[in-house]
Amino acid sequence: MKKTSTIEKNAKIVNRYLNSKIKGDPKMLYDAASHLIIHGGKRLRPHMVMKSCQILGGSTVIAMPAASAVEMIHNFTLVHDDIMDNDEMRHGVPTVHKKFGMPIAILAGDVLFSKAYQIISNAKLSNDAIVQLVSRLAKACVDVCEGQLLDVKMAEEKRIPTQNEYITMIGKKTAALFDVSCSMGAICATGNQKDISNLSNFGKNLGIAFQITDDLIGVMGDSKITKKPVGNDLREGKKSLPILMAIKSAKGEDKKVILKVFGNTKASKNELEKAVDIIRSLGIEEEVRMQALHYAEMAKKSLSNYSGTAKTELIDLLDFVVKRSV
Amino acid sequence: MKKTSTIEKNAKIVNRYLNSKIKGDPKMLYDAASHLIIHGGKRLRPHMVMKSCQILGGSTVIAMPAASAVEMIHNFTLVHDDIMDNDEMRHGVPTVHKKFGMPIAILAGDVLFSKAYQIISNAKLSNDAIVQLVSRLAKACVDVCEGQLLDVKMAEEKRIPTQNEYITMIGKKTAALFDVSCSMGAICATGNQKDISNLSNFGKNLGIAFQITDDLIGVMGDSKITKKPVGNDLREGKKSLPILMAIKSAKGEDKKVILKVFGNTKASKNELEKAVDIIRSLGIEEEVRMQALHYAEMAKKSLSNYSGTAKTELIDLLDFVVKRSV
Repeated sequence: MKKTSTIEKNAKIVNRYLNSKIKGDPKMLYDAASHLIIHGGKRLRPHMVMKSCQILGGSTVIAMPAASAVEMIHNFTLVHDDIMDNDEMRHGVPTVHKKFGMPIAILAGDVLFSKAYQIISNAKLSNDAIVQLVSRLAKACVDVCEGQLLDVKMAEEKRIPTQNEYITMIGKKTAALFDVSCSMGAICATGNQKDISNLSNFGKNLGIAFQITDDLIGVMGDSKITKKPVGNDLREGKKSLPILMAIKSAKGEDKKVILKVFGNTKASKNELEKAVDIIRSLGIEEEVRMQALHYAEMAKKSLSNYSGTAKTELIDLLDFVVKRSV
Repeated sequence: MKKTSTIEKNAKIVNRYLNSKIKGDPKMLYDAASHLIIHGGKRLRPHMVMKSCQILGGSTVIAMPAASAVEMIHNFTLVHDDIMDNDEMRHGVPTVHKKFGMPIAILAGDVLFSKAYQIISNAKLSNDAIVQLVSRLAKACVDVCEGQLLDVKMAEEKRIPTQNEYITMIGKKTAALFDVSCSMGAICATGNQKDISNLSNFGKNLGIAFQITDDLIGVMGDSKITKKPVGNDLREGKKSLPILMAIKSAKGEDKKVILKVFGNTKASKNELEKAVDIIRSLGIEEEVRMQALHYAEMAKKSLSNYSGTAKTELIDLLDFVVKRSV
């Protein structure tokens, strides 16, 4: 597929750039900082930076520092997230704190964060562009922290959040980085604030569609493909959109079946399958897909004034994001 | 004392600015992020930013964003440090992770980090100055992470480090932030690279003198003033300059007494007092004070071309740093 190959091609370029930057002494710090990056990731965000620069007439080369910086920030959030959740595996390998210990993992995240700003501040761009990049990226990082805290709080509370609360949370936790990926790409190409704002909106809405779809897969995904237990997010008690819609819609016996497995790590495969079947019969899958499509449509609209290959590729990526099953 | 009152005056201004910036939703994130800041700290680094700006003819007002940013970065390192060391108390109150839990403490550190860059990127300075500020601050943050990893590694290894290794470690872990405080202050006032480099050298050498003195107090400090057990760093097995010099100098029975309490949290007060007396009799205190003075002299030399009140205040601060007993 042409789309995939462009992402893959860009991923290779970004990987080379990242490898050259995440280096230094003491070696152990940089081994820890590059551990997850080496072992996986599709580099969706750098791809979006590069394509958002291209759609406005910029070259992918000038977008490279911003593209790499956003991937470093993304990985910094993964490293710290895994510590907070005490997760043991990611990309099929032990998480950074499992492999290197918690203190080094905290530092590995912090150094990725620092390097991201260092790379941007040293980019061969106008000072005006660099200041805009730093300002946008810092704002996005604040949003991610706020979003993660909302997520932690939601998980701790007994109360089921509203749809609006969920959208606010993922808007900060996930979509802020997609948003800034596209706006940073735009800033590398132009000083036109209307263009930057269009790309920013594209990224933000794509990000929300991405997370909604991700959360759908977390509940309804085929366990053979996701390599996780059936109804995994249900079992883990995640308060994601499909789950909160299901709990709201279900009545009587159905509701009991869902609530019995919700957050119950001892629930049997049989019980989980039954709950997922009920959620499916309630039409939640269609409803959630519709929500994702709604944000995808808004994203698409933001690009209505543009044309060319980069636009096609961004729209392809958007379609991929809402249609994917893993 | 005049010096103290200027620091205190500046501390109040910085505190007001910090309070206005470390705010937002979710409130709990910002409560955690401001927890240590509210409960103490002399604001030495912001003071140095402001005075480094003044010595070159700039006003303290234009240095305020940089001054606050460096204090946020300093506090971010404290919050993450306390998690790494699992420390329970700081400034006489529970550490952030003890009060708010580890996940929120990680996020509190991360949001301070992000806000620091946000404040700098939005400062009312030329874009050229802002880019220099971000570049220097990001480099300093990388250095701090590298220095902290060197510290973690030194603590884990059985080997006693050399003096050079110790100086390299504190140069990154501690002095990098003092260095960048002064260079950022300079950048707020001028584009002259020679001036910026002079102030940078002043900060770096002051920072090394500061840490050496701090480490001396950690071993020889009067426990009534430090409010820590006699020979605390010895008991905790810290490989600081006075300790590594003592282990190198001591012979025969003296060496045995020192090594018996080194890293031995069960050592008695009597044993510790005996070890500290031996270290004192070896002349380590004078030798270490001489080392600190050596760096203080180098710091002083960097300011030889300047004059005026701000210079006097920076030199007063330098004297205070090397002469203090707590």
